Amino acid sequence: MAKEHETLYERLNDRLATISDVRSANSLLFWDRQTHMPKGGIASRAEQMATLSRLAHEMLVDGETGRLLDASGDLDPCSEEGALVRRARREYERATKLPAELVAQITRATALAEPAWARARGESDWSVFAPHLEEILPLKKRAAEALGYEDHPYDALLDGYEPGAKKAWLEAMFGELKAGILPLLREVTEKGNDENRTAPLYGAFDEAKQERFGVEVVTRFGYDWERGRQDRTVHPFCISFGPGDVRITTRFDPGWLAPALFGTFHEAGHALYQQGVNPAYARTPLDGGASMGVHESQSRLWENLVGRSRAFWSYFYPRLRDTFPEALRGVDLETFYHAINVLAPSKIRVEADEATYNLHILLRFELEVALFEDELFVADLPAAWNAKMKEYVGVTPKNDAEGVLQDIHWADGLFGYFPTYTIGNVLSVQFFDEAVKAHPEIPAQIQQGEFAVLLGWLRENIHRHGSRYDPDQLVQKATGRPLDTAPYLSYLRNKFGELYELD
Amino acid sequence: MAKEHETLYERLNDRLATISDVRSANSLLFWDRQTHMPKGGIASRAEQMATLSRLAHEMLVDGETGRLLDASGDLDPCSEEGALVRRARREYERATKLPAELVAQITRATALAEPAWARARGESDWSVFAPHLEEILPLKKRAAEALGYEDHPYDALLDGYEPGAKKAWLEAMFGELKAGILPLLREVTEKGNDENRTAPLYGAFDEAKQERFGVEVVTRFGYDWERGRQDRTVHPFCISFGPGDVRITTRFDPGWLAPALFGTFHEAGHALYQQGVNPAYARTPLDGGASMGVHESQSRLWENLVGRSRAFWSYFYPRLRDTFPEALRGVDLETFYHAINVLAPSKIRVEADEATYNLHILLRFELEVALFEDELFVADLPAAWNAKMKEYVGVTPKNDAEGVLQDIHWADGLFGYFPTYTIGNVLSVQFFDEAVKAHPEIPAQIQQGEFAVLLGWLRENIHRHGSRYDPDQLVQKATGRPLDTAPYLSYLRNKFGELYELD
Repeated sequence: MAKEHETLYERLNDRLATISDVRSANSLLFWDRQTHMPKGGIASRAEQMATLSRLAHEMLVDGETGRLLDASGDLDPCSEEGALVRRARREYERATKLPAELVAQITRATALAEPAWARARGESDWSVFAPHLEEILPLKKRAAEALGYEDHPYDALLDGYEPGAKKAWLEAMFGELKAGILPLLREVTEKGNDENRTAPLYGAFDEAKQERFGVEVVTRFGYDWERGRQDRTVHPFCISFGPGDVRITTRFDPGWLAPALFGTFHEAGHALYQQGVNPAYARTPLDGGASMGVHESQSRLWENLVGRSRAFWSYFYPRLRDTFPEALRGVDLETFYHAINVLAPSKIRVEADEATYNLHILLRFELEVALFEDELFVADLPAAWNAKMKEYVGVTPKNDAEGVLQDIHWADGLFGYFPTYTIGNVLSVQFFDEAVKAHPEIPAQIQQGEFAVLLGWLRENIHRHGSRYDPDQLVQKATGRPLDTAPYLSYLRNKFGELYELD
Repeated sequence: MAKEHETLYERLNDRLATISDVRSANSLLFWDRQTHMPKGGIASRAEQMATLSRLAHEMLVDGETGRLLDASGDLDPCSEEGALVRRARREYERATKLPAELVAQITRATALAEPAWARARGESDWSVFAPHLEEILPLKKRAAEALGYEDHPYDALLDGYEPGAKKAWLEAMFGELKAGILPLLREVTEKGNDENRTAPLYGAFDEAKQERFGVEVVTRFGYDWERGRQDRTVHPFCISFGPGDVRITTRFDPGWLAPALFGTFHEAGHALYQQGVNPAYARTPLDGGASMGVHESQSRLWENLVGRSRAFWSYFYPRLRDTFPEALRGVDLETFYHAINVLAPSKIRVEADEATYNLHILLRFELEVALFEDELFVADLPAAWNAKMKEYVGVTPKNDAEGVLQDIHWADGLFGYFPTYTIGNVLSVQFFDEAVKAHPEIPAQIQQGEFAVLLGWLRENIHRHGSRYDPDQLVQKATGRPLDTAPYLSYLRNKFGELYELD
């Protein structure tokens, strides 16, 4: 039903807007399932979500999308319109290159693998999950071949999360990180940690008060409650239905302060990004982040650079103590600051500190590449995992549940996804340093509980662009150079050097 | 993408299931907008809902739907499959008979009329709304012609809400009701009402306590919280996403007990119907009610036949008094029972009592028919309204805001909808009487706060059938005769005769 006088580019936009609407509706089906849906809705909800996914996919891969993309191919690649077409084309091509039969096989295999993984982890029994991974891995290799690549099949999968990223480039990045983090970890381990260091974070922390405190903080960050809301879920997430409606969820533990505290800062960081996207990008492929890594840079920036800094807590700790006078009795600012900044080897990625976290990612990246290069086989994965844990982090999982089975990602077929976490960590410091270089008053403002200048810099240089630029372009534009591990390593060195009184 | 070995009937079912999923997703977009959506989501949400409506409509009117319906046309009309095809065909035909251009005009006209109506009512200025109705009315007449009818154009619109209903049949029904209710109203008016009769319902009623009380009641009714939930909205409603997820919403007034109390019973009545639909009907056109009128019969049954009965309150009033000892101090059961059962002329439909409510509907029905027969013109509507209010109810609105402008229905183009409210009232008693005839212990059980036998009868005779039967079939099957006003009139006569000590 083409309207009169409508250009082909406008028709492309209408089509993409329809796809975006269907996906937003599907996102709401997901959000509702995680937050409010009664148990009885499970079966119907699965059908509804499958149907909306299918409809969005069918509209995307329809030949008409391709024709309209071709007809809009001569737009200035540096314009917003050109960027929109480039993003849409990338998605169209990734979707159309994958044979429907392969997509169906992957969907089926991962749907079966998820519960098997949960059972395998519960029983710490690799043999329950291994056959599923044996099935998924070749399918993902076939997907990589179908998608195509220049240098390495792994690049084809990486590109789905981090446009333009390559295995060789990641190897260089991880090499630099390894060279910086391993000695840091060694030095800290030699000094040793007081076992009671994290004790202040455990105790009786009323959930409603935790919530109020988190709300106060992220409101000061600049999270706009007229364009968002917060709900409770087992696994926290941020979800956007357009720049006008970006929601976060939080998990509260009445006996442990850390999950809700840093989880809220983290999800608010994602949300600030989405709330800051140019509103004109609503219902277009530009209403998103530049990449998973850039998105993670924003959540990590607010969680760690801001939310685990001494400046931040010099303002907020008195408020936190007023909120929990009993639980935090006798805990002074420095003690609290040390408690939230322990550097120590750990077996579980999601519990790792800022520095060793990247070793957990490095390990997964190396194992994924080895699997893709047939240097490693599924049967040997647990042993390889444990060896690398010993080598990099210095610990050995006591079983596969706290080892190779700890993450769901491989059950979901998400090969190439893990590295974006570390890209996010590295970029968080590169961006933060650049903001401080432009506005040296930022640290002093954080100490006053003020974040407007920092948020303003992020809005101007990152958020408003949405998905307009690929990550390498955006990083270059915002910081004048490509991704650089030096600021990150120097941040870690300075922070933990001071905390652990290293030389 | 037809699957191998799939029959045409199965393909029809797949197609209808897809449409059902898209509509359920759209329902969730609506539910979320009314309950939880932040303000900033308004614009995007409107787009999302318009897109999903359009997609569902396009799939419905697609020629493939017609072909699959034709191919399934030889199924036994008495079987579930035959009923499913009949329902689907009716909807398909109603949708395909309306030219797309007419649908678009009606959508546009009603979208503009809604805010105009709100402003007109706010300013009590008919001239603000009249031009919109002047535009909508001819469009609805064109729709009636396009849909087709045997006897009267109004029937074509009625049929969309109450399959099989006709103007002539409604005239007979309203004639009987008028003959019964007008004398009743006259007799009660002669006796007169104590002005303080409703006073017990006003006072300080904590909202959380109102909510707890309502939850206790509808849980006892049999509302299944594992397949539903309750939220707060300005306008209460019930919404189903399939038999496993049927939600209600409630409005609480901390100074007035009635809205949340009877609103919760009412919406729970709708919800019990939907929760009781055969689960095998999920994602089919049979997952609904037989008609709007039959649906309303279920909400009215629980709201009025149960929820305003002496038997019910003889069990629940002590609990209500325990909940609100201050506000209900000195109010005994009889006083409370009288307060919730005042029969008195009123100007506003939604505030009317059980009996005169139908006069408000009668008035609208007669005006709608006159408009359709060109016996009445939009310009003369306010005067005609006031004249009929005086004649039937005995009151004269002091302005159009509390007169002809009180309801949004005409701004939405909902001609033919009002009569279903009265059909619901009439059927509620016909069904209830039949249930009591089959199970004479029901009244005594209600007095014990037990509803299982009543709900069981409704489940067996009404709920489980969903939309399988047309209303006339269902009423015949459940009660052994067609819709009958006699039980309803005798219910009103007995109840209010006793309350007002009439002869």
